[in-house]
Amino acid sequence: MAKQWMRIAAVAGVLLCGRMAVAADVSGEWVAKVATPGEPQYAHVLLQVQGDKVSGSWGSSKVEGTLAGDKLELSLTDEDGKPAGKLSATLNGASFAGSGTMAMRNRFGAGGGFGGGGGGRGAAEATVNWTMDRAATPPAAPRSIKFEPKELYATYSASVAPALHIFSGDVVHTWTADAGGVDAKGIRHRGGDSNIGPFYVEGALPGDTLALHLLKVRTNRATARQGTRINAHAVTAAYLVGAKYDPDFSGEWTLLPEKGIAVPAHPSEHMKNYSVPLKPMLGCISVAPPGDEQYRGGDLGPFGGNLDYNDNVEGTTVYLPVFHAGALLGMGDGHAAMGDGELTGSALETSMDVDFSVEVIKGDSTGQVRAETKEYLIAFGVTGSVPESIQVATSQLATWIKKQYGLSDSEVAILFASTLKYDITELVDAKYNVAAKVPKSILSTMK
Amino acid sequence: MAKQWMRIAAVAGVLLCGRMAVAADVSGEWVAKVATPGEPQYAHVLLQVQGDKVSGSWGSSKVEGTLAGDKLELSLTDEDGKPAGKLSATLNGASFAGSGTMAMRNRFGAGGGFGGGGGGRGAAEATVNWTMDRAATPPAAPRSIKFEPKELYATYSASVAPALHIFSGDVVHTWTADAGGVDAKGIRHRGGDSNIGPFYVEGALPGDTLALHLLKVRTNRATARQGTRINAHAVTAAYLVGAKYDPDFSGEWTLLPEKGIAVPAHPSEHMKNYSVPLKPMLGCISVAPPGDEQYRGGDLGPFGGNLDYNDNVEGTTVYLPVFHAGALLGMGDGHAAMGDGELTGSALETSMDVDFSVEVIKGDSTGQVRAETKEYLIAFGVTGSVPESIQVATSQLATWIKKQYGLSDSEVAILFASTLKYDITELVDAKYNVAAKVPKSILSTMK
Repeated sequence: MAKQWMRIAAVAGVLLCGRMAVAADVSGEWVAKVATPGEPQYAHVLLQVQGDKVSGSWGSSKVEGTLAGDKLELSLTDEDGKPAGKLSATLNGASFAGSGTMAMRNRFGAGGGFGGGGGGRGAAEATVNWTMDRAATPPAAPRSIKFEPKELYATYSASVAPALHIFSGDVVHTWTADAGGVDAKGIRHRGGDSNIGPFYVEGALPGDTLALHLLKVRTNRATARQGTRINAHAVTAAYLVGAKYDPDFSGEWTLLPEKGIAVPAHPSEHMKNYSVPLKPMLGCISVAPPGDEQYRGGDLGPFGGNLDYNDNVEGTTVYLPVFHAGALLGMGDGHAAMGDGELTGSALETSMDVDFSVEVIKGDSTGQVRAETKEYLIAFGVTGSVPESIQVATSQLATWIKKQYGLSDSEVAILFASTLKYDITELVDAKYNVAAKVPKSILSTMK
Repeated sequence: MAKQWMRIAAVAGVLLCGRMAVAADVSGEWVAKVATPGEPQYAHVLLQVQGDKVSGSWGSSKVEGTLAGDKLELSLTDEDGKPAGKLSATLNGASFAGSGTMAMRNRFGAGGGFGGGGGGRGAAEATVNWTMDRAATPPAAPRSIKFEPKELYATYSASVAPALHIFSGDVVHTWTADAGGVDAKGIRHRGGDSNIGPFYVEGALPGDTLALHLLKVRTNRATARQGTRINAHAVTAAYLVGAKYDPDFSGEWTLLPEKGIAVPAHPSEHMKNYSVPLKPMLGCISVAPPGDEQYRGGDLGPFGGNLDYNDNVEGTTVYLPVFHAGALLGMGDGHAAMGDGELTGSALETSMDVDFSVEVIKGDSTGQVRAETKEYLIAFGVTGSVPESIQVATSQLATWIKKQYGLSDSEVAILFASTLKYDITELVDAKYNVAAKVPKSILSTMK
């Protein structure tokens, strides 16, 4: 009997410990994945378990629920206090899997995903299946990673397999080839504005923003090459027809980083004393585009790509909207210097030594790419026309600043009309990029 | 007999002196005016008379001919050595009047007038009537003129009567009202982006370029006013619809030139510490538009007008194509500061103290307005769309630099792709203005 009671007590103890162990484990950070007829939707989930009571957050929604053994029941309430979902799931190994109903917003993409916060119009209740896995555990301290690119890629697509997984804070030391895929040693990898990566950023989910800190962007060889004819988008038909280009004119440059300049390698008579300051930049910076979209390396869009911004230099932070888990960051297409608009269809194309780190800004996306230099907050507008790009850039900058500084539309109007500057960054590729920017020195008076 | 001989000799002497006097008088600078079915065409004419032989220039054509008594016969040869006209005329008082045949180019306007030099395609011989008057004689030394505007005007048109005649080198000390026509003392003259002038510049003919040197552009009162809503051209439809503007939001500014800043006069809570640097500029700078074209003061075009370029400041030289004799220069619409594009449809609108001088560059026009600051050569493109304005600005800058520095199209392509910058200057009025510019420091290596 005693033995039997002890056995029962032991079993009960095991069961109790089991339940207590489960309760302890469930507290913390998770990543929820909800199946939809289209793309899966993701949310950052944070749970606290006390006894059998569960509380926490699901994207920008509030979570309340219960944990009974391996059965989890959750109720979601959105920012406006409205019911956002009722979900149940069972723990199976290290993952939950289950079903329920959710208020699904009728959109995907910009600021997208149900956990992406704010602004979605029109929600419908849908029956869903979902899973939830532990968020990846970052290393105890940020790592310094030397990444030697093996295979370059020239298609922006979520189907490109990640070359490296990294965490916020990790510093990656690497290099990029030139737009033609040629590296510092003259080895050709592949062309087409080829990129290195993609880098899978742990913890980055659709609806987040990925901050890319360009810690180092420096030319790493003595040569660059540039087109020698002005692209048709940049000049009148009369100029285009009348221009007499010398087919043998050299577009080769010699880079002299010790002097901070680039000079023509085979200068014409008028250009024997010509030089331009070196300002090494990355033409291509991207995340994987939404859904199953695919674009060539020379293309650009809300996901970035061939943005060709001549202030995407060492010291700049680039903010990219995340469309897929892991973001799938890529970069390439270094330019030793570039005028606005990349008028000859190429700048001083060369390879670069690049150091970077990343940071995930959860549940905060403005739909297209942004950047920040020492002097400016910058919003890009990439569309099929310059006027629309101007509108997207201006509106994105306004939305960003309104949120970040708590400003009204009237205050933003005064700010923009008195300080905003535009840069026309890309005129000659598949889409157009315009940057709108405001000086941080003036913005800082508005906090 | 002796008396009679003396009388005959005296008469002969008078006749001879008369003829010699005529010969002497005809040497020098003239302005020819040729009647055409459309606008009259003008040319700068320079004649040297030796005996009865006449030589010199007619615009960019070479002149040879004879002067017999009061009868002038001229043959013109163009830059390519082709016959350009045969003209005869009789001196009547201080003017010649006559007829002849001329090779008339089939165009008018940009670089226009038969004397405007280069580039016209298609010439036809036409029978013409013409007159020729002495070029106005400049004062012995440039004058300093205090000009007190009496009547402001708000229509760009050659029909506006000149308010003052000036010569190259004269320095005019004057003031401009704000866009609403209000001067430094608060007196309202008239609205509609009203201008002072027009100033008739002696010696300026169609096909010339007028250089306007802005010697002083400074705010002259403590107040400015600005719109408080972003114009629909600058933002997306979604932003436009979603923006919640406070109808009572103040757009009034206080100008503090002693501190070099402007501050909101009635700041909202977030803007209590807000300030922008003063950068006084003239929004409107114009010559009379071609032919009998007429535009409102807020409009803009190849003749300038409401260009709204925030680097048209003290120290800048603005180059305007001349479409009418005297150019008919006007200016106004001072802004104490302005972001790119004038996004609220107005900048920090205020009145200005302005000093300026002018210079006529004969027979050299690039079709639209250009400018030069300490740092940049700048070409504007004013058209009905931003993409076209980009093309016009880029092409005009290329044409200008090719001529001025003797560069090839290939050299310009390298220059532009490595150094060109764009400014989007006017987004919110009847037309769009884009500036293309290159740094003079780099250009200077190409001389």
